[in-house]
Amino acid sequence: MDNRPIGVFDSGLGGLTAVKKLSQLLPGEDIVYFGDTGRVPYGSRSRETIIKYTRQDIAFLCSFNIKAVIAACGTVSTTSLDDVAGDFPIPCFGVARAAAVKAASVTKNGKIGLIGTTASIKSGKYEELIHACDPKAEVVGRACPLFVPLVENGRIHKGDAVIETVAREYLLPLREAGVDTLILGCTHYPIIAGIIGEIMGCGVTLVDPGAECAQFLAQRLAESDGLSEKNAGGRCAYYVSDSTEGFSRLASLFLDSDLAGDVKQVSLDTF
Amino acid sequence: MDNRPIGVFDSGLGGLTAVKKLSQLLPGEDIVYFGDTGRVPYGSRSRETIIKYTRQDIAFLCSFNIKAVIAACGTVSTTSLDDVAGDFPIPCFGVARAAAVKAASVTKNGKIGLIGTTASIKSGKYEELIHACDPKAEVVGRACPLFVPLVENGRIHKGDAVIETVAREYLLPLREAGVDTLILGCTHYPIIAGIIGEIMGCGVTLVDPGAECAQFLAQRLAESDGLSEKNAGGRCAYYVSDSTEGFSRLASLFLDSDLAGDVKQVSLDTF
Repeated sequence: MDNRPIGVFDSGLGGLTAVKKLSQLLPGEDIVYFGDTGRVPYGSRSRETIIKYTRQDIAFLCSFNIKAVIAACGTVSTTSLDDVAGDFPIPCFGVARAAAVKAASVTKNGKIGLIGTTASIKSGKYEELIHACDPKAEVVGRACPLFVPLVENGRIHKGDAVIETVAREYLLPLREAGVDTLILGCTHYPIIAGIIGEIMGCGVTLVDPGAECAQFLAQRLAESDGLSEKNAGGRCAYYVSDSTEGFSRLASLFLDSDLAGDVKQVSLDTF
Repeated sequence: MDNRPIGVFDSGLGGLTAVKKLSQLLPGEDIVYFGDTGRVPYGSRSRETIIKYTRQDIAFLCSFNIKAVIAACGTVSTTSLDDVAGDFPIPCFGVARAAAVKAASVTKNGKIGLIGTTASIKSGKYEELIHACDPKAEVVGRACPLFVPLVENGRIHKGDAVIETVAREYLLPLREAGVDTLILGCTHYPIIAGIIGEIMGCGVTLVDPGAECAQFLAQRLAESDGLSEKNAGGRCAYYVSDSTEGFSRLASLFLDSDLAGDVKQVSLDTF
């Protein structure tokens, strides 16, 4: 038994999708969430800067005596987590690894599509993780830098000419490459899974890294006697680096239910 | 005579348009530019966070013994500059004031359109500045949050369905309101002035705040004997908070010529 909370962080609020899944799977666990809303987005920044921010994010969560941390940010999990994880005394789980394992297990034709931020695609991390499962798998990656601002500006509905045009432009080359599995490598992408799925066609399986990672962590904690004593009533505490104003509106994009917990602003300058 | 350099800063690289104009008007002046590329964009963040970042940006530039600073960022000049400027021993010029004066002087029907970031429109600062010049002027504002990511992703060409659709959506209500003058209240917007001008129609005058502010500062320095002794050969030094990699590519969007000066990365954590 381990009653310490689980830490989850993201460059912004997209990582709340992982919190939601984690709360469903393990309703007794306490969770501390940090969203770096004062410095979002990470995906267009340099690797060096992403490493610096990641180190501060995890150091902040460690101040809550957590038992494990999920890097829910696709960019962090591909670009900086390996450089930073060893500096901390707790296990760090990135969403990329769980998604890569899942994608390698569900593909039938060995052709896996990957969409993510510019930094994620550039990192080559998903190829490395997928090839560790299946050396013959072919990975076709595509950076989709406009998806995050479009989702955050509410362009998430079928029939919206802007999101439809951009999505077709990004995705048709992947469809034409014949992938049968597509990793949604950024926490914002599951929000437009309907639009993505329609363009890719019904034969393509979409993989949601946040959900896969939550599932993976739940299994790991169960196997290692690391779960909380409680079976229900886990509490969530939310921290952000920008003002908490507007948090609820954007959070509701990623969580269906109301927030069950306080939201506080924090500065990471000293971490 | 005052041979100290002029400081110019922006949340990112858009403020280079002000540098370009300043170098044309005052080719003998040394300039120190800071672009906060590690924390861009500012326009979607809270006022409190923008104030904090602005204070750090100016404190950093003051370490170069500058004689004046231009806040080339539309968001800073509307949202945080008034709160911060008094803390520093040098004059601080925001692009909004010069643009408001210009717009009030060129409008014939007293209807002025304004486009900017969400923070800029929310601030009400342009209305205040314009009404100080002409209390009867009508200001019609519209936040255009997708323009910055679209420009940064190269969607700047006429005929591009995405930028054309978004621009029409943002601008047609301003055109229908009958404005005869439009303030391009963010440093990225002059890049798509062609598209904006076509939608607004040829009877609408576009005002570029960066260029207006450079002109205003040049006049002020000339009147107060604050110009450099040199008439040519001014040097530019560029600083950014993210990696310098990729700086040239994005900088070339805003500067037609090659960069005449070094680019260095700097951390503002201690400012």
